[in-house]
Parts: sequence; structure tokens; C-alpha cells
Amino acid sequence: MSNTGMKIFAPASVANVACGYDILGFALEKPGDEIIVRFSEKPGVRITKITGAKGKIPYELEKNTAGFAAQKVLEHLGETRGFELEIHKKMPFGSGLGSSAASAVAGAMAINEMLNRPLTKRELLPFAVLGEQIADGAYHADNVAPSLMGGMTFIRDNATLDVHKIHVPRGLIAVVIYPHIQVLTRDSRNILSDSVTLKQTIQQTGNLGGLILGMHNSDLDLIKRSLNDVIIEPQRAQLIPHFYDVKEAALKEDALGCSISGAGPSIFALCANTFIAENVGNAMQKVLSDNKIENDLFISPINHEGSIRL
Amino acid sequence: MSNTGMKIFAPASVANVACGYDILGFALEKPGDEIIVRFSEKPGVRITKITGAKGKIPYELEKNTAGFAAQKVLEHLGETRGFELEIHKKMPFGSGLGSSAASAVAGAMAINEMLNRPLTKRELLPFAVLGEQIADGAYHADNVAPSLMGGMTFIRDNATLDVHKIHVPRGLIAVVIYPHIQVLTRDSRNILSDSVTLKQTIQQTGNLGGLILGMHNSDLDLIKRSLNDVIIEPQRAQLIPHFYDVKEAALKEDALGCSISGAGPSIFALCANTFIAENVGNAMQKVLSDNKIENDLFISPINHEGSIRL
Repeated sequence: MSNTGMKIFAPASVANVACGYDILGFALEKPGDEIIVRFSEKPGVRITKITGAKGKIPYELEKNTAGFAAQKVLEHLGETRGFELEIHKKMPFGSGLGSSAASAVAGAMAINEMLNRPLTKRELLPFAVLGEQIADGAYHADNVAPSLMGGMTFIRDNATLDVHKIHVPRGLIAVVIYPHIQVLTRDSRNILSDSVTLKQTIQQTGNLGGLILGMHNSDLDLIKRSLNDVIIEPQRAQLIPHFYDVKEAALKEDALGCSISGAGPSIFALCANTFIAENVGNAMQKVLSDNKIENDLFISPINHEGSIRL
Repeated sequence: MSNTGMKIFAPASVANVACGYDILGFALEKPGDEIIVRFSEKPGVRITKITGAKGKIPYELEKNTAGFAAQKVLEHLGETRGFELEIHKKMPFGSGLGSSAASAVAGAMAINEMLNRPLTKRELLPFAVLGEQIADGAYHADNVAPSLMGGMTFIRDNATLDVHKIHVPRGLIAVVIYPHIQVLTRDSRNILSDSVTLKQTIQQTGNLGGLILGMHNSDLDLIKRSLNDVIIEPQRAQLIPHFYDVKEAALKEDALGCSISGAGPSIFALCANTFIAENVGNAMQKVLSDNKIENDLFISPINHEGSIRL
């Protein structure tokens, strides 16, 4: 193996997906993070370069999701060689698109690829989740699992990483808009009430079941009826200026559904085809631009591969 | 068409199915209710005989789930001929096995069969639900839908009857035990707290999604991990003496899961095959018998046909 290094890509992801708070996520084809990994003379993992993060990401392994995940894989494998990582953040940071998860995934993948894949992606999952936990505080896989494994992933239980890939209907395409406002994941969690009504729980289980069935059966009408979040969205929407206007614009252009991506502030919509997605994207962007909120728009099919070596 | 009458069967059903409060149910092959229907000289619907209910079921249409459902179908079809119904209750009453739902289903089916099926089962559903509402107070289909349509049914939304049949793995078999104690559906509803924690809601959506995926993929291990009710069962268990002993006995004999059937007091278990089901049934029955609680035991495959003309 030469030591020119390998380049690893890990995609952005949309967690929660309306009715699946903490248990659903899907991967995008773009944007995503890249890590270049090389063998090093010094044992362990070292981060030698970080670009695209405006100095906001620490080089210390214990505070860096990619470095920590890489380190955990190394320890697990009992590998004594050393590795250098260059982290190239190529996606917005603190956007609700699973940026820290993507880095953690790329870090875990980097070591595994350099060592000729001793572990399957399923086996890498816990190390990537440990990496992301550094940024997020919680041990949960709703961004990490789709970024690593691709597709739409359902997590029955985060503690045991009981993770399952859900069938994605042909042609399904995601629109994601990132308004340039700051929402801290921590605030976004703290705002949530610990109390839910029984009626809301019945609605949420109904919609979650409907979404899974709709995906499995490629029943777009059922997906549309199910893409509703009666619990989290009403609480977090207040952190995102013009959220309901953006959502209304997306639904008017025939999005199957529209809600907050992860902890926000990004907003996602799912659409039946590219034509609709373009219209939905334009309509969502117009609302933010009319209100002088800078934004980035991404239109992407569901990414079925997840993290890859480029 | 002769006027010797037709005999209609509608099966018992298990609602909630652990993690699917108000939105899941499945039908049994036995027990069930029978209705004999004949044309009558007098227009409208008349109940001429009720057996097996110890005088507890009223003959007035407005208070009788079978009669009311039949009447609603008649009105919908604009039928001017009259019908007589004999209701033969062949399943325990107030047992949590969907007795009133089965009668409502049989009543709706009776008229439709006599008229040569002008309506599909899907089209009959709202009338049967209206019939059951008389007994239950709530407009919901978690017993009515499986009793009518068979199989395991998932109801995304009761108000719009967004009902879907779920694939049932080959060989899956149900054990149901009815302890002879009285639990009124009304009490069983009133005992429930209106407040649920966010954590419980996440667990419940995870388990509900896991159960649907497990059923679809015939993944018995996933079904087993998912058959847990963290919200309703802990509250209702107190109404059923020795519930946790019965459950423990069922799980010890390798049941995939065990919980309360509908509003109780019946307790159901799902099992991978008949051999296990026999052991599970014996173990559950032993707990009740040892505690001198009379009971009825039913072991039945999932009924895939639902209500039929015999």
C-alpha cells in the first residue's frame, strides 16, 4: 500500500424525518465531508489539517468527532501503526445536516479502509456513534447510521443500535435548505418539553408506522399523509424564522412533506421527482431570500451508498 | 335467493398488540360471533333473537352494535327491504377480545351478503366502526378492521380510517387467555394518564416501527425485540391480577411477546409455531389456575380472511 493516502467521503444526512424523532434518518448525495488519511511514523491518530471550518473544530482527538471515532476503531482492532487525518469540512456546520456525524463516519471509515476493511459498516457503526457523541452529547445514530450505511435508516433502539435500512421508492428526492442562522443543538434539545400527550403519541406512532409502510410499498400518498410531526416540529419551529412560510411554500409546490432537518435550522422536503423538487426548492428559497435570510439550497436524491472511498 | 337465511361469522381480535395502542390489531380464527340474517316483510332491521349473552345485550338497534351497523349499511344503500338478525354470541363478552366489534362487523356483513356484496369490505368498514362506537364510545377501528378484513391491520389514523394490512410471517400463532374477572373498557380507558414522557414516545415509535418492519420481513427476532409496550401496559396491568406472572410464564416458554389484549382482561402472546404456542398456553393457564382464577384459553393462527359467510 502506498502512502499517498486515501480520500474518504461521508455524506450529510437528515435526521428525524418529521415523525421519526431520534429514530429515522436518510443520507444525501451532497454535501458531505472528506477526510484524507495516511500512515504515519507516529503510533495513534493525529489530525494534521482542518479546512472549511473557520477554526471552529479542535485538533485534539478527545474533542474531534472524526479523530475520536478513528481512535476508537484503532483501539478496537489493536492496530499499532499510526495515522494522519486531514479533515476537509465541505458542508455547513451547525446546520442540522449531521455535519459532526459525517466527520465521525469518515474518521471511522478512514482507518478501516486503510487496513483493507477488517470491519463491515455495521461493525463500524458503534465507533462512529461514539465519535459523534462528542459533539452531540447523546449516543444516537439517527445521523451517523444513514451517513455510514446510506439510504433511509430506522433505529428501533439507539442504546443497542438496532438499526435497519428502509426501502426507498424509486425517484424520491430530497430538498434541503439551510438558512444562515445559528441554532445550537443544545438549545434545540433544551427547548423540548419532556411531556407529550397520549393523543400526540398515538398520532406519532401512526405516522411513523405509515411512513415505514409507505416507503416499503412505494406508496407516495401514504408517505405524504404520514410525513407529519405533531410533537417536535411545533416546539422547534419558533427557533427558525419563517419556518411555516417555507413549509407552506414547499407543500404548495407538491412536496410530499416538509419539516425540520435534525435539530435545525435546516428545513427539508421530500419530493416524488426532480421536476417537483426544483419547484419546491425555488419556492422555499424565495421565502428566505424575500426575507433577506442568506441560505444554501441542496437538491439531492437519497444516497444509497453512504460513506465511500473516493 | 331463498329466505332460509345466511350465516355470517366475524372473528375475535386482539387490539393494541403491545406497542400499537389504538392503531394495531389482528384477527383470530376462533372464537367469534355468528349472525343469521333473513329477509323480513317489515322494512328496516330487526333483531329477533340473541343467544350466548346472558341477557346483557339489548335488542334496540340504537344500543346494539350489530343492529346499528346493519342499519347504517341499509341506509347507505337505500335498500327498502327488511332484514331480521339472530345474534349468536359465541365469544366472551367484556373480555378485551373485540366482542362488540365482531358483532358490528357481522351485522354490516350480513346486509351486504344478503344483497350480493354491493360493497367491498373496505367500504363496509366505516359502518362497522359506527356500530362498535355504540359500545365503546370511540370511533376507532383497531378491533373492527382486523375482524372484518382479517390479518394484522395497521391504522395510521382512525378519524379517516387510513387502514393497511400488514404482512404476517408464516406460522405465527396467537395464544389468548381470558381470565374470568371483570374489567370495564370504560375503567380501562379512564385509568390511562393523558401524559406520556418524550422518552416513552421515542421508545413506542421505535417499537411500533420495529414491529411493522419485523412483520414485513418475517424477522422474528425483531418482532420479539419490538413487542413491548412502555406506555399502556404498565398502567393497565394493575387491573389484571397476576398479569406479570402470566407474562413471565409466557416469555419463559419462548413467546415472542406477551401483553394485554385490547382493554383487557385477556392477555395475548404471539409465538413462532404451534409447538411453542401449546407450551406458552399451558404455562399461562397454569398461573391463573394455580391462583384459582377461572379462564378460557384460545390458541389460534392469525385469521387472514376476517369475517366470512359460512
